[in-house]
Amino acid sequence: MVALRKQVYQQLFARADATHGLTLFNKAIIIVILAAVGVTIIATEPAMFQPHREFFIGLEMLFGVIFGVEYLGRVWSIVEEADGQPAWKVRLHFVFTPLALIDLVVVVASLMPFFFSDVALLRVVRLIRLAALAKFGRFSTALRELVRALLARRYELLVTMALAACLLLFGASSLYWAERHVQPEAFGSIPRALWWAIITLTTVGYGDVSPITPLGKLLASVVALGGIGLVAMPTGIMASAFSDAMQRQRDAANKDGPDA
Amino acid sequence: MVALRKQVYQQLFARADATHGLTLFNKAIIIVILAAVGVTIIATEPAMFQPHREFFIGLEMLFGVIFGVEYLGRVWSIVEEADGQPAWKVRLHFVFTPLALIDLVVVVASLMPFFFSDVALLRVVRLIRLAALAKFGRFSTALRELVRALLARRYELLVTMALAACLLLFGASSLYWAERHVQPEAFGSIPRALWWAIITLTTVGYGDVSPITPLGKLLASVVALGGIGLVAMPTGIMASAFSDAMQRQRDAANKDGPDA
Amino acid sequence: MVALRKQVYQQLFARADATHGLTLFNKAIIIVILAAVGVTIIATEPAMFQPHREFFIGLEMLFGVIFGVEYLGRVWSIVEEADGQPAWKVRLHFVFTPLALIDLVVVVASLMPFFFSDVALLRVVRLIRLAALAKFGRFSTALRELVRALLARRYELLVTMALAACLLLFGASSLYWAERHVQPEAFGSIPRALWWAIITLTTVGYGDVSPITPLGKLLASVVALGGIGLVAMPTGIMASAFSDAMQRQRDAANKDGPDA
Amino acid sequence: MVALRKQVYQQLFARADATHGLTLFNKAIIIVILAAVGVTIIATEPAMFQPHREFFIGLEMLFGVIFGVEYLGRVWSIVEEADGQPAWKVRLHFVFTPLALIDLVVVVASLMPFFFSDVALLRVVRLIRLAALAKFGRFSTALRELVRALLARRYELLVTMALAACLLLFGASSLYWAERHVQPEAFGSIPRALWWAIITLTTVGYGDVSPITPLGKLLASVVALGGIGLVAMPTGIMASAFSDAMQRQRDAANKDGPDA
Repeated sequence: MVALRKQVYQQLFARADATHGLTLFNKAIIIVILAAVGVTIIATEPAMFQPHREFFIGLEMLFGVIFGVEYLGRVWSIVEEADGQPAWKVRLHFVFTPLALIDLVVVVASLMPFFFSDVALLRVVRLIRLAALAKFGRFSTALRELVRALLARRYELLVTMALAACLLLFGASSLYWAERHVQPEAFGSIPRALWWAIITLTTVGYGDVSPITPLGKLLASVVALGGIGLVAMPTGIMASAFSDAMQRQRDAANKDGPDA
Repeated sequence: MVALRKQVYQQLFARADATHGLTLFNKAIIIVILAAVGVTIIATEPAMFQPHREFFIGLEMLFGVIFGVEYLGRVWSIVEEADGQPAWKVRLHFVFTPLALIDLVVVVASLMPFFFSDVALLRVVRLIRLAALAKFGRFSTALRELVRALLARRYELLVTMALAACLLLFGASSLYWAERHVQPEAFGSIPRALWWAIITLTTVGYGDVSPITPLGKLLASVVALGGIGLVAMPTGIMASAFSDAMQRQRDAANKDGPDA
Repeated sequence: MVALRKQVYQQLFARADATHGLTLFNKAIIIVILAAVGVTIIATEPAMFQPHREFFIGLEMLFGVIFGVEYLGRVWSIVEEADGQPAWKVRLHFVFTPLALIDLVVVVASLMPFFFSDVALLRVVRLIRLAALAKFGRFSTALRELVRALLARRYELLVTMALAACLLLFGASSLYWAERHVQPEAFGSIPRALWWAIITLTTVGYGDVSPITPLGKLLASVVALGGIGLVAMPTGIMASAFSDAMQRQRDAANKDGPDA
Repeated sequence: MVALRKQVYQQLFARADATHGLTLFNKAIIIVILAAVGVTIIATEPAMFQPHREFFIGLEMLFGVIFGVEYLGRVWSIVEEADGQPAWKVRLHFVFTPLALIDLVVVVASLMPFFFSDVALLRVVRLIRLAALAKFGRFSTALRELVRALLARRYELLVTMALAACLLLFGASSLYWAERHVQPEAFGSIPRALWWAIITLTTVGYGDVSPITPLGKLLASVVALGGIGLVAMPTGIMASAFSDAMQRQRDAANKDGPDA
């Protein structure tokens, strides 16, 4: 019994045995999570859900049972981490960790359809399960490196974000000033004009809002020509931090040997 | 009295004591400026302003009083900078510096609502107060480094801006030539076609103006495929100058020790 | 006869003689392929095809004959590769290779117009002939280097693609939550909202779908400001891998001498 | 007379004396060219031209006279370049150089309004005068370096352009296949679908054409996610070549001393 519990623990808590790569069980649970997320996404589409109502509810139940068993397995085997503490205390502590609470919500949400007719939103909560994948193997070290690289550049990020914010505010104020009487719906206040400024300076440019007066077009041209690239700077810094972190990790892996 | 004035001076003129980081008072005034700017932005939205008219006017008054006290404190304590000059001369000189004049306008604008009913635009002037934040601590050195890095590359900036301008002009002239009879409103003159060229080559692409003839689409395709990236080059050079400046400053900070 | 077959073989199978650059025959077949692809593209346009029906069908036939002769020449001369195997076995093996099957389909499709009236789609198959160009000279080594560079970074690509997928999913879920009752056609399910998320985060921004509620605009602003650059990271890594591969190849070429 | 001709020659042919920077006359002619181009641009706008008809025609005449005098001055002083050849031969040769022909067209176009009522297009020819600015001082060396850097990377440019062309063609064919019956106007042929592909993959995204079927949206998503960045690669390579050329020139200038 205790030997079984130890094995269950090693399988369910991936970080307990990270150096040996993903176990067969790890891979199975990753596939189940991806499948559950995929089903949840597709089930939000009425054209898919309505004709196959029973099928989707059945899948929901199945995933609910799988996640329920996994949840109970975790609660049962967490005792392996106890350093002389009583089992109920370790379990109670585990049940109230954020990830375990999310798991519980997901399980309950999946088994819900009996009681409620529209729990679509609750089911979407399961997307958070994706975050659980971050714990597995290499992803976990990659994310830790990324956070470290971002922290090292927090000052650049702050300065560029402040510059981008000023630019957005300046653009929004200019267009508010130029077009607030002509297009009160779109530029009637600075918060409204900020929507235009953000969609323009990220170069998305839906076209739902755009200046129509010559003065507004002139100001928008100046803002667009001057501001593009500056708004993208914080994400540029993040991307470069990420790429540095990847490089560092690869170098470290090469140093440790081909198995890393 | 003189000791108090010296302390007020040190608190209000941040650059007087930059090496010790932000004082408690510095942080307080930054928060007040950000709050005042935030309130000003939100107050331009009629859906927010109309139902809470008294509340927003009250806040305006409050910020007006705070900035007024700060302004008077500056005028009073500036005498500390006098090197034997009479106090009234130092104060008069300070009152007519651009930043002090802006402060005065902001204070007066905040206390206005009694006299005028629509001073929305005047209140927006306060956004300029954001510039005052640039004086604080690290931002000030960051901006100085940035200006230096831009000046070092002024020649690249000039050449790329000239190339981008030629490209914009070439694109606008092409579409003016191809579509001026079909869409006179959008392409009836080169200045009008320039609006199209700027929105296209910055890849914003609102879609309020786009070619409809096969020839126009062909020319627009050539301009779009050839020109994208070139128009973004000046801002790219600016971004790289900025990132160099940041790097240089970080290196300098590391050399000076961990407190920098 | 055997000497002729050897020469035909050397001309038709470019890789057999790559070090001496493109032969005259290679250049001719490249031009014919480009011309055939160009004619195929233009012939899909009814405004071009209908008035010049006979002309286009004639061109089709001509290209069909050229590709047919080339195909037969390949089947005939492939025997040169036989290492003692019987000729019919080598030819049969060649006929069932993917590229030869595509060639056969292209030849048949070009000679079709007699039998079918609308084989537009089948003719488009010929675009795949473009892939055949990849075998020629330098392109072949460039593509091999590119694939190697991409494989070396497969881990970065996987992590950034996973991050981009999470971001797209997060953005789609947010807007699904915020606007599903207001715009059921555009945001009524997560798959529908994903279309918005992809078009927004690639900064294409058609404007066929965009948030209209204040909450939706706020969420879209956060997603747009935070996510731009992250979605472009996988292609950024690919571009940098490509540029590295080019550099490596150029260095190797310079080492081998000016004829490489 | 000969001494005057020599001085006129030195002033009008900037390249004759590039090392001493721009002369006062050079600066004057640059300003006149920019002014003439500006006036030409503004004069295409009917709302500006109609009410000030006489004023614009007068300016045209003035610029025509200035450029005419400059043209005659060039023809007169070009004799300085004669190495024993007869003057009329040198002048005739100069008159038929492309730049001199453009100058003649520009002069004639500016003096036209007497004879024709609508020579707007002819006047636009003057924009080509901007190219003349490329001869002056530093711009000339910058452009020479740029051309050299682009030639050094012509192979990368060719490969990336071929890849981008394949991608555009693949995207256009996919959408042509998916939506040609639903939106024949926009996707009824591959050339039409290419307009969509170019506007999408450059991320301009006007929104005048976008897929409406689920299949079309799926294919467009794949093309957009996969292709962005690849289409921008040729311009990216050009931008990096340009920045290298600038760097090289700056290094050379620093070596030559502070006056370069």
